[in-house]
Amino acid sequence: MTHTIVASATREIIIGFDQPFCVIGERINPTGRKKLAAEMMEGNFETVKKDALEQAACGATMLDVNAGVTSVNPNETEPGLLVQTLQIVQDLVDLPLSIDSSVSGAIEAALQVAKGRPLVNSVTGEEEKLEKILPLVKKYNVPVVAISNDETGISMDPDVRFAVAKKIVERAADYGIPAHDVVVDPLVMPIGALGDAGRQVFALLRRLREELKVNTTCGLSNISFGLPHRHGINAAFIPMVIGAGMTSAIMNPVRPQEMEAVRGANVLAGTDKDCTTWIKTYKDYKSGVQAGPVPAPAAGEGAAAAGGRRRGGREARMARG
Amino acid sequence: MTHTIVASATREIIIGFDQPFCVIGERINPTGRKKLAAEMMEGNFETVKKDALEQAACGATMLDVNAGVTSVNPNETEPGLLVQTLQIVQDLVDLPLSIDSSVSGAIEAALQVAKGRPLVNSVTGEEEKLEKILPLVKKYNVPVVAISNDETGISMDPDVRFAVAKKIVERAADYGIPAHDVVVDPLVMPIGALGDAGRQVFALLRRLREELKVNTTCGLSNISFGLPHRHGINAAFIPMVIGAGMTSAIMNPVRPQEMEAVRGANVLAGTDKDCTTWIKTYKDYKSGVQAGPVPAPAAGEGAAAAGGRRRGGREARMARG
Repeated sequence: MTHTIVASATREIIIGFDQPFCVIGERINPTGRKKLAAEMMEGNFETVKKDALEQAACGATMLDVNAGVTSVNPNETEPGLLVQTLQIVQDLVDLPLSIDSSVSGAIEAALQVAKGRPLVNSVTGEEEKLEKILPLVKKYNVPVVAISNDETGISMDPDVRFAVAKKIVERAADYGIPAHDVVVDPLVMPIGALGDAGRQVFALLRRLREELKVNTTCGLSNISFGLPHRHGINAAFIPMVIGAGMTSAIMNPVRPQEMEAVRGANVLAGTDKDCTTWIKTYKDYKSGVQAGPVPAPAAGEGAAAAGGRRRGGREARMARG
Repeated sequence: MTHTIVASATREIIIGFDQPFCVIGERINPTGRKKLAAEMMEGNFETVKKDALEQAACGATMLDVNAGVTSVNPNETEPGLLVQTLQIVQDLVDLPLSIDSSVSGAIEAALQVAKGRPLVNSVTGEEEKLEKILPLVKKYNVPVVAISNDETGISMDPDVRFAVAKKIVERAADYGIPAHDVVVDPLVMPIGALGDAGRQVFALLRRLREELKVNTTCGLSNISFGLPHRHGINAAFIPMVIGAGMTSAIMNPVRPQEMEAVRGANVLAGTDKDCTTWIKTYKDYKSGVQAGPVPAPAAGEGAAAAGGRRRGGREARMARG
């Protein structure tokens, strides 16, 4: 059984086919959020803190942390800002983090201060990326998201995307990184532009699970780009990818419709044992009233639902390395 | 490609892997509806008419018609009442119908008056049922729902349920009924009672599709029996069964959350070409407002979404027979 272990200071989470779907909260990311970018550049982390607490309260399993505020000299500015953001988040919430940067220096700086066992987001099939990121993944003994594109871009041919994923898994193995520490993103295209996008990703997920035996993730909301009522498309996509074998996604946990789809699919996939999280979350749900406040997630859903248990934090991680 | 053809007086619908999911409206059924049963026994069909129009307006592809008002002498009373109900419904809405009865005399009486090409609901693997229903299915050249239980009841072992389905398909073939006119119901258990119910049905659906090459259906809401917020479980189950290959379900089309899941899954499975039905239905959907009126389905969704086209009605069916 493929198990990818991530951890915060005190909590360990398993990503795996036999585990509840791992929801990686996407909100702490200034890309496309001008106001957040401006705040972060000014050293104002109030929105970051609010987003961290809110995503945790809504049932996120992990939080993605991105500090890519500018394209001007990111090599100079991003390492410090990513470290600062990461430290603020990990001091505030006890969830495993995903270190999200395209700057390898920022990833390494964040790895040096991260508690527990964070996920590195990401490496691609590009030679330069492989050579910069995989040694860090090995050195810090952490898992990594592997995105299925390379120097030639994103192929519209799913067989090519599979081949890129396979190359990354093999290259990781050359560095001594096991397949269970590579979480493949097969790349999700907008269904409104590419009618075959759904079937492509379902087929890819099965191959990734059966042939490469890896965990998988995606930027979930890409699927609904450009369509009306995107939450409805996202909420149908989630059970379908879970049924096809996807084990995590980078998504917005603050959206009740999407989180309901995750919790329902966990029940149906048999990973919400005795429907415990479902019943705790929805026992007082008012029939026929679909709007209203976000249902309070079951206490400790993020950890309990994703196989969380206490562990020794960074020390324990280092002891394995 | 497996195509099951059903038809109303003037509209033909295809059930198939390459078609939008076929929603068989379940409302016209007095089982468990005491008030409706009392009305029907008094010759009052106002609720039947309302249910027919409402289900059609909400986007049902077909309507199930059941007149099982009593267990006292159903052989005497049900044929007449089923015929009366069926005629009222088919005069009111131009959707293909499913003739739902456990009384073979009622099924035959309904077949004699039904326009187009109705679906017979149902036969089981019980010898007595096979010998009574299959000759009718052959004589009237109609498709039939095959429920995967036999004299020994409903097996908890999915392999046994598959074997029962296979037996019915083979027995139908002996009568000259092709596999594409057998729509198998693999039987859905409540997930709250049987944690493996989801995985069982997903695996069964794949085998039914790949090995028996049949279309499939189920009583959809069984899955959520006993759980809070059943619509949420149903709405997660729908995309998962569609992803696993289910091609129809007997369900309540008046529920917006479930119908949204059907429409979303059709987009993702590639059977809502260019997202046409989705965009028509949700183009004015208000973001963040999940309650409120049922979104108006796209005009003619039932027919357009399920490959409907004009045909010659009963004459055309008989010409094939």
